[in-house]
Amino acid sequence: MNRVALVGHGMTEFSMDDLPIESLLAESARNLFNSCGNPDRSMIHAVITSTNNNAKYLSQVLSEMLGIRPRAAHTLESLCNSGTNAIVSGYSYIAAGLADAVLVSGAERHDSPGRVLEWDLSRGEFAHPIYWGSVFTRAYKQRHDIPEEDIAAVAAKNHKQAAANPYALPNPPYTLSEIMSSRQITDDLKVLECSQACTGGASVLLASEDTCSKFTDEPVWITGIGQKSMSAGFAKTERFDRLESTAVAARDALAMSRHTAADVDVAEVHDAFAACEPMALESIGIADAGHGARLARDLYETGNRMINPRGGLIGAGHPLGATGVAQTAEIASQLKHDSGTGQADGPKVGLVHNMAAAATSSTVLVLEQ
Amino acid sequence: MNRVALVGHGMTEFSMDDLPIESLLAESARNLFNSCGNPDRSMIHAVITSTNNNAKYLSQVLSEMLGIRPRAAHTLESLCNSGTNAIVSGYSYIAAGLADAVLVSGAERHDSPGRVLEWDLSRGEFAHPIYWGSVFTRAYKQRHDIPEEDIAAVAAKNHKQAAANPYALPNPPYTLSEIMSSRQITDDLKVLECSQACTGGASVLLASEDTCSKFTDEPVWITGIGQKSMSAGFAKTERFDRLESTAVAARDALAMSRHTAADVDVAEVHDAFAACEPMALESIGIADAGHGARLARDLYETGNRMINPRGGLIGAGHPLGATGVAQTAEIASQLKHDSGTGQADGPKVGLVHNMAAAATSSTVLVLEQ
Repeated sequence: MNRVALVGHGMTEFSMDDLPIESLLAESARNLFNSCGNPDRSMIHAVITSTNNNAKYLSQVLSEMLGIRPRAAHTLESLCNSGTNAIVSGYSYIAAGLADAVLVSGAERHDSPGRVLEWDLSRGEFAHPIYWGSVFTRAYKQRHDIPEEDIAAVAAKNHKQAAANPYALPNPPYTLSEIMSSRQITDDLKVLECSQACTGGASVLLASEDTCSKFTDEPVWITGIGQKSMSAGFAKTERFDRLESTAVAARDALAMSRHTAADVDVAEVHDAFAACEPMALESIGIADAGHGARLARDLYETGNRMINPRGGLIGAGHPLGATGVAQTAEIASQLKHDSGTGQADGPKVGLVHNMAAAATSSTVLVLEQ
Repeated sequence: MNRVALVGHGMTEFSMDDLPIESLLAESARNLFNSCGNPDRSMIHAVITSTNNNAKYLSQVLSEMLGIRPRAAHTLESLCNSGTNAIVSGYSYIAAGLADAVLVSGAERHDSPGRVLEWDLSRGEFAHPIYWGSVFTRAYKQRHDIPEEDIAAVAAKNHKQAAANPYALPNPPYTLSEIMSSRQITDDLKVLECSQACTGGASVLLASEDTCSKFTDEPVWITGIGQKSMSAGFAKTERFDRLESTAVAARDALAMSRHTAADVDVAEVHDAFAACEPMALESIGIADAGHGARLARDLYETGNRMINPRGGLIGAGHPLGATGVAQTAEIASQLKHDSGTGQADGPKVGLVHNMAAAATSSTVLVLEQ
């Protein structure tokens, strides 16, 4: 089996601007190429675009804009989980011997389709993600008797960490008291505890072991992959205080990488809502059940950037199809100790966790240098 | 490297009906499961939906409808080429060791997005595919001095062959003279020489060598894969009398399978317009340059079903995201000598050719039992 490395990444700024999806894809890819010596395009055998945008043939449009004539090219969609699924798909082309290098480029606009779960009629009028966010937050707090302030501290940590991320939405680094006093949008969610759908792009370049030295001296290896879809609909979810698909995906990814959760030094986890972060940490095994919120609060108070160093979705913003790609780019940057003032302390093993639609599906990656 | 086999397939009837996309996906998948002994769903590790439909999270909706909880699940789009690209993506998951079995399900409605190439502004008002169909038809006829009747004979052959296909659009088997006298919709295209966007679904199940015996005693192996994207836009196409992306994809697929074009016993080729069939045969190498139309006419006159035995896109109809899956299902059926009155004569090596958007991208598969 061919080993697969991440050999370059590029970002756009996240914003609320009305930018064309094609420009977002191309800008992040051009930044990627600049970051790895403007490589020979003929080595890129597949181009996968990750988005919920309804435009067709985007991967070929992007390829033409970049001067690439790939073998495989198509768009991949799985709501918020699109970006990490696209990276796994790119990995599989290389591991299968069908491609030497694969460009994965994710982009979204703030007004993208996919933000509201129109397909899930079991939700009735409650199609907006804040409703599942509320159900999960309440179930998690009640099950483990979590104080409201510990949930708010997750958001405070991520808003603070986003201040060191040059690509994050240009929000101020809201303090814990500002978050606690921010507008209550449901019984269980404050507005500053929620991520915001935004405009942005992110690209990564994957390469085989035999070719990665043509792109970089610092490959970051994808050593673990886990994916799980439980259902399409919320109505089949059995527990709301835990992310079931995440637990399966994390177990499989860690097993493939021959690591345990205790080995993870830095992680990006999908904090669509603040309570999702401790729930993810517990479902992955980084924290014991009921202790994720306290861990996140400790990290906040000690300034430890181990979890969501770029600010997560709450701090950085959430361009749906780009999020998984941006998370993976951040972990690669962290493992190369290349994250500037946002750098976590000497990480060797990194983890990416992404999910979609009330955690009905999850993807977990383990990365190592 | 894990070998990958096609171990089952299922279809829906093609129609002009307003059916929900989810029902089309599920019906073809249920027919597939019935065809291979209603297998244990837990062996299906990935579900890939192929469509131009704008609905989100369709792969998870399909999975839930079918009782599958896959690892990977997402929708893939590359216009008319989506179905074959989805099969290659499914192949890569198995060959990479990430999945034992993968369900690929394609579906489309007659009123699907993607029929008109809105993104290609270089076309001006000529966004409908009939315009590129006309340009290609004229260039091909002029270059090789092809009589109008030889082009019409391609359509006559495919309409005739579709009469033996129980899933084809319910058109009469138009004769050569009916096609010759059918309405001229551009200077170079008659209406009965064009495929029709329609409603339909098709599914295939792929499995690893180690697991395929759990699904079937008659695996059909994918032994060759070739894919090429030249550009997104028509304006970059250098020659209009030949399918450049098809030539590259066919060369690579045949080389991977260690066959030459002369070994191909049965083929499905993308006849969006009648002239595309001889152009594809020449670009693949099944016919010499300028001789594809004569070959198709000879096949018509002798009743030889070697090319497009199910009737191709012209005879069967063209549900965009399902077409590549339906083509591949047909070749698998042909290689198992399971195509009833539509059976070609004893084929051992089969080929699938699909393409999108004026042949700016193509995928070619070689299949063998």
